Amino acid sequence: MKIVVDMMGSDLGSSATCQGVELFIKNHPDVELICVGKEAELSSLIGKVKIVNAPDVVLMTAGVMEVLRAKNSSMMVAIKEALEQDADAIVSAGSTGGFLSATTLKIKLIDGVERAAIVSPFPTAIKGQKAAVLDIGASNENTADQLVQFALMGRIYARAVFKKEEPSIFLLSNGSEDEKGTPEIKEAHQKLKAMNFPGFMGNVEAREALDGRADVIVTGGFAGNIFLKATEGIAKMMSSMIKKAFKRSVASKIGYLLSKKGFKEMSQTMDYKSTGGAMLLGINKVAVKAHGNSDAVGFNGGLEVAYRMAAAKIVEQLKEGISNERR
Amino acid sequence: MKIVVDMMGSDLGSSATCQGVELFIKNHPDVELICVGKEAELSSLIGKVKIVNAPDVVLMTAGVMEVLRAKNSSMMVAIKEALEQDADAIVSAGSTGGFLSATTLKIKLIDGVERAAIVSPFPTAIKGQKAAVLDIGASNENTADQLVQFALMGRIYARAVFKKEEPSIFLLSNGSEDEKGTPEIKEAHQKLKAMNFPGFMGNVEAREALDGRADVIVTGGFAGNIFLKATEGIAKMMSSMIKKAFKRSVASKIGYLLSKKGFKEMSQTMDYKSTGGAMLLGINKVAVKAHGNSDAVGFNGGLEVAYRMAAAKIVEQLKEGISNERR
Repeated sequence: MKIVVDMMGSDLGSSATCQGVELFIKNHPDVELICVGKEAELSSLIGKVKIVNAPDVVLMTAGVMEVLRAKNSSMMVAIKEALEQDADAIVSAGSTGGFLSATTLKIKLIDGVERAAIVSPFPTAIKGQKAAVLDIGASNENTADQLVQFALMGRIYARAVFKKEEPSIFLLSNGSEDEKGTPEIKEAHQKLKAMNFPGFMGNVEAREALDGRADVIVTGGFAGNIFLKATEGIAKMMSSMIKKAFKRSVASKIGYLLSKKGFKEMSQTMDYKSTGGAMLLGINKVAVKAHGNSDAVGFNGGLEVAYRMAAAKIVEQLKEGISNERR
Repeated sequence: MKIVVDMMGSDLGSSATCQGVELFIKNHPDVELICVGKEAELSSLIGKVKIVNAPDVVLMTAGVMEVLRAKNSSMMVAIKEALEQDADAIVSAGSTGGFLSATTLKIKLIDGVERAAIVSPFPTAIKGQKAAVLDIGASNENTADQLVQFALMGRIYARAVFKKEEPSIFLLSNGSEDEKGTPEIKEAHQKLKAMNFPGFMGNVEAREALDGRADVIVTGGFAGNIFLKATEGIAKMMSSMIKKAFKRSVASKIGYLLSKKGFKEMSQTMDYKSTGGAMLLGINKVAVKAHGNSDAVGFNGGLEVAYRMAAAKIVEQLKEGISNERR
C-alpha cells in the first residue's frame, strides 16, 4: 500500500506531522509512505520514508484558486505524486476547501458521483459507538439525488469502518415525521423509500441524531456543517463549564480528584480529534483531511483512517455501488 | 393588560398550567388573564381569572388542518377569545406547528412581514448573557428578504428583552467569511451590508455562535432548527455523562457532593426550559409558545415572556420597524 502525505498543513508545524509519521510506521512497516514538504524540515524521516521536496505551503486561509495556482505547494505536489505513483491514499491537514477542490479537480470524482461528501464519525450516547455524518461541509446546497448518493456512500463507509453488516441510515431533518424537511429532503426521503434502500429508517431530528440508533446520518452540506459545529461548540462550552465548576473552591478541587476518572472517559468520548480526521468520499482515491491543529497523535490518527479506508478498498466499493445504482 | 391562556397544551396536564397561572397572578395582580380549557379542570382558578370553557384538546401530533378544524379546542377558542377581547398576548404549550399556523391564519401577520419566525433565547459562554436565535423552525426555506426581516425582528426583540441598546447581529453560516453560505445567506449578507443594518457584524459559524459576541443570530428555519436541536441534544448527552461520571464509585459520589454547587449553576445556565418559551415574531399579537412539557415554573415563565413582550409593545415596534424598512 502506498500513502502520500502532505506534511505541511498542520497548524502545529512539521515537527508534529513528522512525529505522527514515525508513530504510524512503527505500526505499519509494510506501508510505503511518500512524504511531501520542505525537505529541510523532514530530515528526521530520511531513510524511513520517501521524501519529495515542495518549497511552498498553502495557507489555511487560501481561496480555492490560490490553492490550485500554488503548483509548488506541498498540497499540490502531494496530489501530483499520488497520481503519478498511483498511490492508494492521500492525507493532508491543510485547508479543507482547498484540499476538496484540488482533489476533485485533479484526482476527479468517481464516475457517477455528482458531489464529493465530507464524512466524519461522531460520538454517540452509547459508549464506543460512532455515527457517520455526511455531508458536513463539502457543498452549500444538495439535490435529492445527491442526498441519495450520500446515503449510499455512508452505507459503504459504515460497513467498512464500523464493521456493521447492515448499518441503519437516517435523514437529518427538522422532525422525525416522513413529511418533514426541505423540499430536497422530502424528495430524498421518498426516493430512498421507493427504492427500499437497505437500512433506511426515515428522518431523525438533530436532538436524537446521536442517541446511538443511527449508524449513518445523511444531510446536505450546509445543515451538516451547522450540525457539526453546533455539536462541537456546545461540547467545548460545557467542557469549560465543567472545569470552572471544579475550580470554584478547595472542596470542588478535591471533588475533581475523586471523580476525574469518569470525566476523563467523558472527554475522550467527546474528543472529535481522536477520530483522526474526516474523509472526502466520492473522490477517485482515499483522501483524508486530518485536523488542522493535528498533533503527532492526531496526525497518526489521520494516517490510520487512510490506511483502514485503503485496506477496505472503499473506493472500489463506492465505484461498484454507484454503478449498480445507475443500472 | 390582557393575556389569553390556552390551559390544555402541556404534557404535564392542566394542574401544572393552573399552578403556573397562580404563580403568575401573585406577581402580576394587575394583568387580566383569560384562561381557556376544560372548565372542570380549571376550578382552582375560579374567582382569580376569567375562565372560558373549551371541551376539546388539540393533540401534540395533530397536523395543521386538524388544528384548524378543531374549533372547540382550547387552542382555537383561545385564539378566538384573543381576537374578540382584543387581548395583548396569547400563550399556549400546545403543538408548535399548530399554534404557528392557527395564529398566522387567524391573528394574521403584521403588514409587510412575509414569514413569522420562532425566536428563543439561548445560553452563551458568558454567564447571564443570552443570544436570540431566529428562525428556529417556523419555515423550511427562507429567502434573503425574509432573512433581512428576521434581522430586523431579532434586533427589536433583543432591544426589548435583553435591554441592549445596540444589539450585535450575526448571520449563521458555514464559515465566518463574507462569501460563505447558501445563495440566500450570501444575498442576505450583501443586503444587510448595503443597507448599513445597525449592529450587523457579518457571518458566524455554529461553533462560535454562542461564545457571547452575538446578541442576535439570524438563520433560516431549517438550519435554525438543526442548530437548536443539536445544541439541546449534546447538552442533554453531556449532562447524562456528567451524572454517570459522578455515579461511578463511592469516591466520585463524594466528589459530587464537594463540587455540586458549580454543577447546579451549570445546569441552570444550560436549562432551555428556564427561558419559559419561544415567541412567534411577526404575528399581530404577542404569541408565546410555552414548552410542551411545561411544569408550573416553566409555564409561569412562558406567561412572564408574554407579559414582558406586551409591556415592551413589541408588536407595535415591529409594525413601525417593518413600515420604516419598506419606505
